[in-house]
Amino acid sequence: MLAVSTSIPTFEDVQDAARQIQAEAVRTPLLRHDRLDEAVGGRVFIKAENLQRTGSFKFRGAYNRISRLTQDEKSRGIMAYSSGNHAQGVAAAAKRVGTSAKILMPADAPASKVDGVRFYGGEVIAYDRARENREAIGAEIAEREGRILVPPYEDPYIMAGQGTAGLEACEQLAEQGVRADLVVCCAGGGGLIAGVGLAFKALQPEARIFSAEPEGFDDHRRSLESGTRQRNSRLSGSICDAILTPEPGSMTWQLNQKQLSGGVAVSDEQVLEAMAFAWRHFKLVVEPGGAAALAGLLSGELDAKGRTSCVLVTGGNVDREIFARALDLA
Amino acid sequence: MLAVSTSIPTFEDVQDAARQIQAEAVRTPLLRHDRLDEAVGGRVFIKAENLQRTGSFKFRGAYNRISRLTQDEKSRGIMAYSSGNHAQGVAAAAKRVGTSAKILMPADAPASKVDGVRFYGGEVIAYDRARENREAIGAEIAEREGRILVPPYEDPYIMAGQGTAGLEACEQLAEQGVRADLVVCCAGGGGLIAGVGLAFKALQPEARIFSAEPEGFDDHRRSLESGTRQRNSRLSGSICDAILTPEPGSMTWQLNQKQLSGGVAVSDEQVLEAMAFAWRHFKLVVEPGGAAALAGLLSGELDAKGRTSCVLVTGGNVDREIFARALDLA
Repeated sequence: MLAVSTSIPTFEDVQDAARQIQAEAVRTPLLRHDRLDEAVGGRVFIKAENLQRTGSFKFRGAYNRISRLTQDEKSRGIMAYSSGNHAQGVAAAAKRVGTSAKILMPADAPASKVDGVRFYGGEVIAYDRARENREAIGAEIAEREGRILVPPYEDPYIMAGQGTAGLEACEQLAEQGVRADLVVCCAGGGGLIAGVGLAFKALQPEARIFSAEPEGFDDHRRSLESGTRQRNSRLSGSICDAILTPEPGSMTWQLNQKQLSGGVAVSDEQVLEAMAFAWRHFKLVVEPGGAAALAGLLSGELDAKGRTSCVLVTGGNVDREIFARALDLA
Repeated sequence: MLAVSTSIPTFEDVQDAARQIQAEAVRTPLLRHDRLDEAVGGRVFIKAENLQRTGSFKFRGAYNRISRLTQDEKSRGIMAYSSGNHAQGVAAAAKRVGTSAKILMPADAPASKVDGVRFYGGEVIAYDRARENREAIGAEIAEREGRILVPPYEDPYIMAGQGTAGLEACEQLAEQGVRADLVVCCAGGGGLIAGVGLAFKALQPEARIFSAEPEGFDDHRRSLESGTRQRNSRLSGSICDAILTPEPGSMTWQLNQKQLSGGVAVSDEQVLEAMAFAWRHFKLVVEPGGAAALAGLLSGELDAKGRTSCVLVTGGNVDREIFARALDLA
């Protein structure tokens, strides 16, 4: 396997990533709705990353990493593993820079995500989420074929790239003369929230940052409470397919343990209700994992009353059967 | 009834409206997706006005008109008639400037639209779309109560306000170094497309502008072909509730007959397919009338191959029963 950097990114890396991806990524809007303000009892801004290229924030990190490859690296191609959003981000970024991508995805990944990867020319290899180790399989294929491994979060360029969503949110809040008291962001491996944290700690350091995770997969919440990384006992069993990782990443945790103030866990029902809320009032299609932070805020567990919150809505790649369940609650 | 202006707005009025509404309206994003480019065989930009405050472009015109009322006029309150999107725009604008709004809506208006008007404090009065004349009832109530009538399109401030969506689209295209060959916009009374036309004719005059309407309600298309205003034979019978007007407005037509190059008519099925496309790829919730222009482009009737198109997606206020029909096609 080719060497990957294990240095922890800084705010300067996030700023550098913003310049790197500017021409290719969408500057997604920061949206508000009186209904949400009323429901929360405070002022809420939503960063709509479901409107990002490939339907999730993952394009940011993938493009920041892949667009920096050398010609030699591009000629080798890319290897990645992903539940589906990183996969699409990698495939789209690889296509854009003219290299190939082979991507390991769980056999139970949403059909729309597999379809998206193939649309961008990525080659999909299925594995069993419950029984196989994707890191090991991915590393083995990368080694054998000489491919560049682009991990979903354990990489400084990936973390910094995802952090550009937070940098933009800070800039967009500042344009309106607003500072956030509270930031809520979902956490799988923790790459996005680590990068977003870098941006807020640099630009709006008074904001307290909270992770949102599915019940039973609240490894960040429990790790923050105990002070050391905790593992989840399950690997499947939530509709939030995008954020079902076994434990916080090792690199991401180095930032998150310092930057985060705590975490909240949400049920599938709360996630579906948040998806319904986004559908009805924000006119946004949000996938379960992408709605976890909004569900966390709507749960009332975080004290957002009278405060200004910034919520990351992170993806919209959802199959219609799941979406129909949310629609039933609208 | 109080006098209303009948002067036809100019591009300068659109620029003035943009300044007037800047602090209150959302600068909605201009979005792209490789899937749409591929489906059309050209480059397509979507102006996502479903993300506008109140879920449709109508807030632009309503706020441009209502924020200019004198204190005396505000003390009298507002009267409006609307199928539901203008109603919500008026109610939200009235609430923002501190006046009351009474709004005549068809008895068969979508529940979500009635609910939206009430959320913003508007008083809803129902009428029978097929048998009663809303202009006459609205004028009578306005006269009797001394209220200021804010019509949905026959007003220069309304037209200029809606035109700010086009002005923004031109600016956003220019930021990317792009000029449009084709603009597709739905038409009910024709206020939006008239204002959008003012912007494009001033800034990107080579763009050809086309109306999109439901089959059986293609009064603009037929009026453009014949050279004189044509009426529709029906008043209901399409899922596109937002754009079922009997004929082109008198004032709007004065602009549209000069600015438009033609029109396209779309079936309910084509509209549902466009809604499904927007759900799947753009992660946007679009109502039937709001998807008419996208349906028109996807129909293949307009020659968009190898060209750059700008499509206005105009609203997202849809009840779940109708949305579920679109989801079935996704």
